[in-house]
Amino acid sequence: MRIAVVGAGALGLYYGAMLQKGGNDVHFLLRRDYEAMTAKGLAVYSVNGDFHLPHVNGYRTSEEIGTVDLVVVGLKTFANHLYRQLIAPLVGETTIIITLQNGLGNEEALAGIFGAERVMGGVAFLCSNRGETGVVHHLGAGRILLGELCYCGMERVERIAGLFCAAGVECRGVTDLKKARWEKLIWNIPFNGICALLLKPVDVLLRHDGIRAQVRAIMAELIETANAQGLTVPMQQSFADSMIRFTETLGAYKPSMQIDREEGRQLELEAIFDKPLAAARENGLAMPRVEELHALLDLVSSEKS
Amino acid sequence: MRIAVVGAGALGLYYGAMLQKGGNDVHFLLRRDYEAMTAKGLAVYSVNGDFHLPHVNGYRTSEEIGTVDLVVVGLKTFANHLYRQLIAPLVGETTIIITLQNGLGNEEALAGIFGAERVMGGVAFLCSNRGETGVVHHLGAGRILLGELCYCGMERVERIAGLFCAAGVECRGVTDLKKARWEKLIWNIPFNGICALLLKPVDVLLRHDGIRAQVRAIMAELIETANAQGLTVPMQQSFADSMIRFTETLGAYKPSMQIDREEGRQLELEAIFDKPLAAARENGLAMPRVEELHALLDLVSSEKS
Repeated sequence: MRIAVVGAGALGLYYGAMLQKGGNDVHFLLRRDYEAMTAKGLAVYSVNGDFHLPHVNGYRTSEEIGTVDLVVVGLKTFANHLYRQLIAPLVGETTIIITLQNGLGNEEALAGIFGAERVMGGVAFLCSNRGETGVVHHLGAGRILLGELCYCGMERVERIAGLFCAAGVECRGVTDLKKARWEKLIWNIPFNGICALLLKPVDVLLRHDGIRAQVRAIMAELIETANAQGLTVPMQQSFADSMIRFTETLGAYKPSMQIDREEGRQLELEAIFDKPLAAARENGLAMPRVEELHALLDLVSSEKS
Repeated sequence: MRIAVVGAGALGLYYGAMLQKGGNDVHFLLRRDYEAMTAKGLAVYSVNGDFHLPHVNGYRTSEEIGTVDLVVVGLKTFANHLYRQLIAPLVGETTIIITLQNGLGNEEALAGIFGAERVMGGVAFLCSNRGETGVVHHLGAGRILLGELCYCGMERVERIAGLFCAAGVECRGVTDLKKARWEKLIWNIPFNGICALLLKPVDVLLRHDGIRAQVRAIMAELIETANAQGLTVPMQQSFADSMIRFTETLGAYKPSMQIDREEGRQLELEAIFDKPLAAARENGLAMPRVEELHALLDLVSSEKS
């Protein structure tokens, strides 16, 4: 399958590398890593075993790639205004677009440009960081929950999930993409949020009883809002405990938003905070802890711009 | 009147200087400023006019001061375990002890050692910072609300309030000291808390719409808890707006907790956060924003110790 990866950060590079290693014809749209990767390929240092792709197809523009069967979108959400420019040249008659981005609203934005029938969403539970150019570190997890923006059967979901599984990526089809998105938010909002605010990795948070209790309370606010959306099966409050237990296995992991702040990049506040807060308001719910955390992050990140 | 000032930080030095300038016999228990003040006195740079006291009575120990008519306590609350050691040598038959400290629980702790009948509380709305040794900067405000721990008439309150007023300090007697304490907390918790967490002065907070809204929402949580305590006259939500308007007049003011954190000192979290949170819990109320802010501060401050 001919695949383009748009947004080749820690997530795009890792999944692109796995898909290529699995025998697919993968094409990477590159910026920072262009020189390094076209010269010496891509090295993946992974908890599941390191590997090196000596040759990767790297490009400066999407026009050079041309149309593909599948576009995997890994852009930072604050670059979503580039969707049309970066993705349109890749889209042919039957092209499928999967966004693996964080937060809410990405599938809808893509659907507005390319049509809802093309768009799928993947919720990635992946711990990865970029290193030097031409290198990606896979630190843990990696599972994708894959669903249709407009659910009309599982045929396509199963086919694409199979593609990922064949490439060694655990990928499961879900009927309720919205629920999967909220499951990820329940991790992203407390951990990305507090780690980015305090510039401390997840293990420091979980060792502090007061913060641990706040993480749990933030998750409870989010589960209440998620369920108010009308999920096919309501989320249980116990899901929060399982997410905390999972996070305990990650050690001194720095979530992407912490790294974005450390490296002076913009934070993905709109997709990860603003849209969920708007969803709560639309349902007449308050998420006071999420609101406060968002305001604190917005102030510390606005000083950069 | 013979007065001892225990805890000669920005607050103790300012009020002590005013009382001495007003003709009282003031004795300062000193640590950091001992050498400078015994050598060259105390300089007050004040928005109401600068002045210099060429001679001040400075001491290393309370024993050297001996008994006084009035003890003014300006200690940081995390030093309250020193009450007995620092204050007992000052207390005679008729000595009155006034705590001008932040937060909740100080009057009760003093009463436990010295007897409730001796103890009064003053809630100080003062903007002051220490400068070099022997210098204090009075940046704004300065009003004291003075009350009895055990209210049994206003005679003593009026007398001591008159002493401060005669020395040029606006001081008003209140029948409900608890209400005055909570009025101060309504300022202290959002502004000390967020400024200390983000290391930014009050004007930066108020210029950010999201933080401004959170400050207001934190104040609303506190007003609800304050009223649940059973105040003689309930606090109005509009009090929060007047506190925000007052804060807008302060410019780039750094609250004491921000300066404590910048200078690597312990934060007054127990008196300013833990005790109000316990009061909310006792009344079956949640203060989610206050709770989260407290946990964040506790984590960033615990790294120092």
